[in-house]
Amino acid sequence: MIGIENLRTEFLEHLKRTVNHSKPEGLYEPVQYILELGGKRLRPVLTLMSAQMYGGKVEQAMDAAVAVEVFHNFTLLHDDIMDAADLRRGQPTVHKKWDVNTGILSGDAMMILAYQCFLNYEVQTFYDLNQLFSKTALEVCEGQQYDVDFETRTDVTVEEYLLMIKLKTSVLVGCALQMGAIIAGKEMSEQQKIYDYGIQLGMAFQLMDDYLDAFGDPETFGKEVGGDIRENKKTYLYLKSIDNADFSEELQTLFKQDYQDLNEDQIEQKKERAKELFVNSGGANRTLEAIQEYTEKALKTIESLDMEASHKKVLKQFSEDLMSRIS
Amino acid sequence: MIGIENLRTEFLEHLKRTVNHSKPEGLYEPVQYILELGGKRLRPVLTLMSAQMYGGKVEQAMDAAVAVEVFHNFTLLHDDIMDAADLRRGQPTVHKKWDVNTGILSGDAMMILAYQCFLNYEVQTFYDLNQLFSKTALEVCEGQQYDVDFETRTDVTVEEYLLMIKLKTSVLVGCALQMGAIIAGKEMSEQQKIYDYGIQLGMAFQLMDDYLDAFGDPETFGKEVGGDIRENKKTYLYLKSIDNADFSEELQTLFKQDYQDLNEDQIEQKKERAKELFVNSGGANRTLEAIQEYTEKALKTIESLDMEASHKKVLKQFSEDLMSRIS
Repeated sequence: MIGIENLRTEFLEHLKRTVNHSKPEGLYEPVQYILELGGKRLRPVLTLMSAQMYGGKVEQAMDAAVAVEVFHNFTLLHDDIMDAADLRRGQPTVHKKWDVNTGILSGDAMMILAYQCFLNYEVQTFYDLNQLFSKTALEVCEGQQYDVDFETRTDVTVEEYLLMIKLKTSVLVGCALQMGAIIAGKEMSEQQKIYDYGIQLGMAFQLMDDYLDAFGDPETFGKEVGGDIRENKKTYLYLKSIDNADFSEELQTLFKQDYQDLNEDQIEQKKERAKELFVNSGGANRTLEAIQEYTEKALKTIESLDMEASHKKVLKQFSEDLMSRIS
Repeated sequence: MIGIENLRTEFLEHLKRTVNHSKPEGLYEPVQYILELGGKRLRPVLTLMSAQMYGGKVEQAMDAAVAVEVFHNFTLLHDDIMDAADLRRGQPTVHKKWDVNTGILSGDAMMILAYQCFLNYEVQTFYDLNQLFSKTALEVCEGQQYDVDFETRTDVTVEEYLLMIKLKTSVLVGCALQMGAIIAGKEMSEQQKIYDYGIQLGMAFQLMDDYLDAFGDPETFGKEVGGDIRENKKTYLYLKSIDNADFSEELQTLFKQDYQDLNEDQIEQKKERAKELFVNSGGANRTLEAIQEYTEKALKTIESLDMEASHKKVLKQFSEDLMSRIS
């Protein structure tokens, strides 16, 4: 068994070798740039782990892992344009370093490059990977659209929110894991199980991100703590808090303030007050409970997988490590 | 043999049946909108013609034809954002009717929808169509990047320009035709021939577009006559004209004037002067000669194709009709 850190290292070498187009520079430099910005490389590592644990060859899963990572970075690139974000992992976003047109076109190229990664597989595997990939990619676009729609809606339900994060985040985690199973030649019912594990892990991960956005340690969170509050994002934390009638009105009023009308002191006050309301309403605790539930579901799904006990143990440890940011 | 008009009608019905996603509306309404804006449907019709003439079933080529048309409209959608174009076929562009973010995301979804069109083919055909499609799609992005690069360069050569229009326009025409051959089960050498015909036809078509931009009939051209001159586009017409040393300096000076610094009268004067210089330098005639050469090459390639003489005749007539806008 190759350990996770070594998988990541091997993946990065393979990524560098595979995505190495150079001309026209205006098209491909931004592609190299965003791929080299770093990140945990969670999704490609999951593809490699899944293939390996199911008895496949890590080497064989590399191209699919690259596809998943290139696609993920394509979504970051286009999302950053849509969010007018200046920074990504502490560095200028592509549309800031170059311009919006460059960002659009280089992103388009990345999506195609992702599809091309599958061309080395034999035709049936190629077909299966493509089918899963396209379904997932379209769902990610749908999730992004719901996210945009929710910004201007005041009647978003918890169920709608959960569907949105499932589409925007979880399906790609499930897809990454299922690809490993496809490459290792596992049957569809087993593919479905590891996919479900990915969905559950992805949900826990995204809800944890919502929680940490408010209550994370500024030293380790990596993003602006309270950024969701600043931007009035109706996250799970918010939706569960306004479920409590005693807190609903004040929170809803607070989340109508446009940050452009506030100075930084007022934004800090807003963040502090929102956090108090999240805690006092019980919304914070209900979010932690939901994270716990999804994590437990994920661990239970691992139990049902058709792989060696030692591999299940690694997968469990991995899931728990991923969630350890909470405590 | 199903005639071209009937192919177009059947295609439009199939397009409507295939691309019918509805939710989220914010994602899919713009997709329906741009696909229903009209157009000649040249590329999908070529896929259907090619399949039919090679003895394949038109019905079988429909999904590939949809893929080509959806991809083409995706490029129009993102190009319109990059060009800040307000109108497309006389109607508001997607980013004008909705907004830029909608245009980006709906375009992304269209690229994925195009790939999904191939899923109904058996695996080897699926593989072959995908491989060709991805190669072509990436080339189209590269062509668009060169087009953007050329806007700010003053040293573009004729060869570079020809490569740019080949990538931006011709390869998709070649791809559309080759897909028909793949579906009809023709061998690679024959696929290459019909692809080459598409490249030659596409080059002639694009050079004609350059020519008509300056010398077309405002009544029938469908776009603003002289639009390329207004925007200082270094087309074949321009590049061949500045090849003549006696006209080079005046033309280059003329093509440094930003249209935002000119009133409409001055723009009209600039257009008239540029057209005089195009004619007097010999650039106009050299463009007509190049169109003629590419058209003749295309007709000659048709001769070499492995299909019935009656089909070759139809293909020739089709090519000549397409070029008849010139005379």
